[in-house]
Amino acid sequence: MRVGLIGLGTVGGQVADRLLNHAEPLRRRSSGVELILHRVLVRDLQKKRVVQVPSEMLTDDPARVLDDPEIDVVVELAGGEEPARGYLERALRNRKHVVTANKLVLARHGPELLELAGEMNVDVYFEAAVGGGIPLISTFKVDLLANEIERILAVINGTTNFVLGRMANAGAELAEAVAEAQAAGFAEADPTQDLGGYDAAYKIAILASIGFGARVHPDLVYREGIEGVRAVDFRYARELGYELKLVAVATREPGGHRVEARVHPALVPHGHPLASVEGAANAVYIEGDLVGGVLLQGQGAGGRPTASSVVGDLIELARSIRRQVQNRAAFEFDPMVQVVPMAEVMTRAYLRCRVADRPGVLAAIFQVFGEEGVSIASAIQKESDDRSAEFVVTTHPASDAALQRTRARIAELDVVVAVNSFLRVL
Amino acid sequence: MRVGLIGLGTVGGQVADRLLNHAEPLRRRSSGVELILHRVLVRDLQKKRVVQVPSEMLTDDPARVLDDPEIDVVVELAGGEEPARGYLERALRNRKHVVTANKLVLARHGPELLELAGEMNVDVYFEAAVGGGIPLISTFKVDLLANEIERILAVINGTTNFVLGRMANAGAELAEAVAEAQAAGFAEADPTQDLGGYDAAYKIAILASIGFGARVHPDLVYREGIEGVRAVDFRYARELGYELKLVAVATREPGGHRVEARVHPALVPHGHPLASVEGAANAVYIEGDLVGGVLLQGQGAGGRPTASSVVGDLIELARSIRRQVQNRAAFEFDPMVQVVPMAEVMTRAYLRCRVADRPGVLAAIFQVFGEEGVSIASAIQKESDDRSAEFVVTTHPASDAALQRTRARIAELDVVVAVNSFLRVL
Repeated sequence: MRVGLIGLGTVGGQVADRLLNHAEPLRRRSSGVELILHRVLVRDLQKKRVVQVPSEMLTDDPARVLDDPEIDVVVELAGGEEPARGYLERALRNRKHVVTANKLVLARHGPELLELAGEMNVDVYFEAAVGGGIPLISTFKVDLLANEIERILAVINGTTNFVLGRMANAGAELAEAVAEAQAAGFAEADPTQDLGGYDAAYKIAILASIGFGARVHPDLVYREGIEGVRAVDFRYARELGYELKLVAVATREPGGHRVEARVHPALVPHGHPLASVEGAANAVYIEGDLVGGVLLQGQGAGGRPTASSVVGDLIELARSIRRQVQNRAAFEFDPMVQVVPMAEVMTRAYLRCRVADRPGVLAAIFQVFGEEGVSIASAIQKESDDRSAEFVVTTHPASDAALQRTRARIAELDVVVAVNSFLRVL
Repeated sequence: MRVGLIGLGTVGGQVADRLLNHAEPLRRRSSGVELILHRVLVRDLQKKRVVQVPSEMLTDDPARVLDDPEIDVVVELAGGEEPARGYLERALRNRKHVVTANKLVLARHGPELLELAGEMNVDVYFEAAVGGGIPLISTFKVDLLANEIERILAVINGTTNFVLGRMANAGAELAEAVAEAQAAGFAEADPTQDLGGYDAAYKIAILASIGFGARVHPDLVYREGIEGVRAVDFRYARELGYELKLVAVATREPGGHRVEARVHPALVPHGHPLASVEGAANAVYIEGDLVGGVLLQGQGAGGRPTASSVVGDLIELARSIRRQVQNRAAFEFDPMVQVVPMAEVMTRAYLRCRVADRPGVLAAIFQVFGEEGVSIASAIQKESDDRSAEFVVTTHPASDAALQRTRARIAELDVVVAVNSFLRVL
């Protein structure tokens, strides 16, 4: 099986290394099929590389990978929407199998690419697109098929988890924690995709689509980043018995006609499987009607973990080629399944407000909660130096619309200086 | 695909229920193959059952399942060594695929049964044999194949984890905690297989065999149960920064010619992924050279989680029958790989001794450690009411033989009343 590789960066380098320097064990595990690295598409032929790849394998001409009839499978590790999507489409039209780690392209164009692959009688593998080395896609595709998947809860962005961890443990504010993450190699120079929750939204769109057999476009995923989280929120969270995480949530409504899909910071109760996910790790908690809850946790990014999934896909593909079978698992995406608007989602909330330090303040605030039908789960008021006090409240479940109205009305009260934080509670 | 079921207990009932009452979604996920429950072998035809199975499907004659040419796959959920092993062999010789949750038979006879299946051109699936609904076997068979698996650490027996949890949190002694586990349905009337570590030894033998491609017979797994653990050990463990768990450990030595495989109670450091596995849950932490560490956690037993894996295997089998392929993944078991004798295993230890409360005691004890080349990591001595004191020590890594010699020599010292506890430290 001849492999054409697109991209020789952190992941691509590790994939090339394993194919070149680990050939014999891979051949044994691929039912005797040899995985041969045939050609590598790079942008800069002169660039110094950590992994030694014979220079005659390198090319900067996409056609020499995408159109070469000798190549059986194209491994796309370029990332980004274009030209990656176009490369994948061209490879499929040339009847090449594809393996990709591209969450953005899969979240936006996955169903079309899978359909095209079906027409061309070739396979698309993408275990590496979500959760690095964690076996997620195969868990949905194979292991949990006897279940109706009910809910997927995930800490699926390593950068934000590292940043929030620094804020929680060192009391750092966001900017400082981001700088640390960048220094440690856990955040990009421009961290917007991670901090803003875009990366997590692509990933939960993919997981929800596969888990629920629905077409969940990433633009329909409610998305809120961690930009508004302050160090003080971690202290209140701990006091109330929670950790603060960026979570991705996907839920199937009973009946299966609608699904929820959202990404936002949330208070996660101590003892919840996601509460103890530390550093840059990823974890996905899947609830199925038979299996109950299953937690899958590991390194969600990085060259070697991601290469583990890419090469695992190649072995799987080699085995199915050996047996002359195609389309190992067909995905179904019911086009009738709707994504629930965030306003209708039932959730709990945490509000942190600065209020005047005088009688009648709490009565005024609680009256708004009462009028909006939102009931209080816990409340903390701290003494303050000046004439204002900090007031923190968590609610029982209510529609997000009711919670947002409550937040807005409280902010307008005379006795309230500002609502400084509004977070959901898991 | 016609299914013959052996056993209609906790798991069998759930499997029958899903096949009978969930046919349409299963058919869709099985590439259109219908999973038809054809016949069920039970011991007592008259027994009242929770799940309604048409009475004409029930039989107490093994031949009507094992020899019926209409049956394509036999699902064995009887448990125990015989007649289950014989049933599986007979089904395979009749060229039926088999799906089994029988860890005992697989651990003892797995390689022979897999070989026979290969000769007969049929498949053996056993995801349910280890870790209930947790996708373990497929993770090794497929997802982590690009890796050299280096270590498997597991909390893989729900009964002992529940019992140890009660001892840790309620300060209960073993007998009391076992009675609670029995009342809660987490322990059998005769809990020997669980408390003695036999169940965990079967499971780690299977995981080590698959993970390392070696033949690890369960008799070669070093095995020690939790019978000797006392409530006081949990208090010292916490004070030292550990939880106390029954762990199963399998390690591949560099070079891969020998593997370690052992089951024993151990102190697990706080922050380790296995330290927070609560109640009857199971968790397996797999270390691979590419992927790093992956944690898989869920309900390791019970009718519904186990049925999730059994029916998942049936779907997988239906798909491969649809594509007319056999032997989805061949296992290799290198017969040359040896299991390291426990005496040679390097480990850390925890010793709790009762010692005379007079000068010179510690010097005498430490001299023994020094002479055996075992270095001390931490030590606690507690004041006592009578003329003896409790002395607790943890060591740095040493060979288990050196640790055992140290333990024996300390017990013989005049100043030592008894070594009341000897546990390994992870």
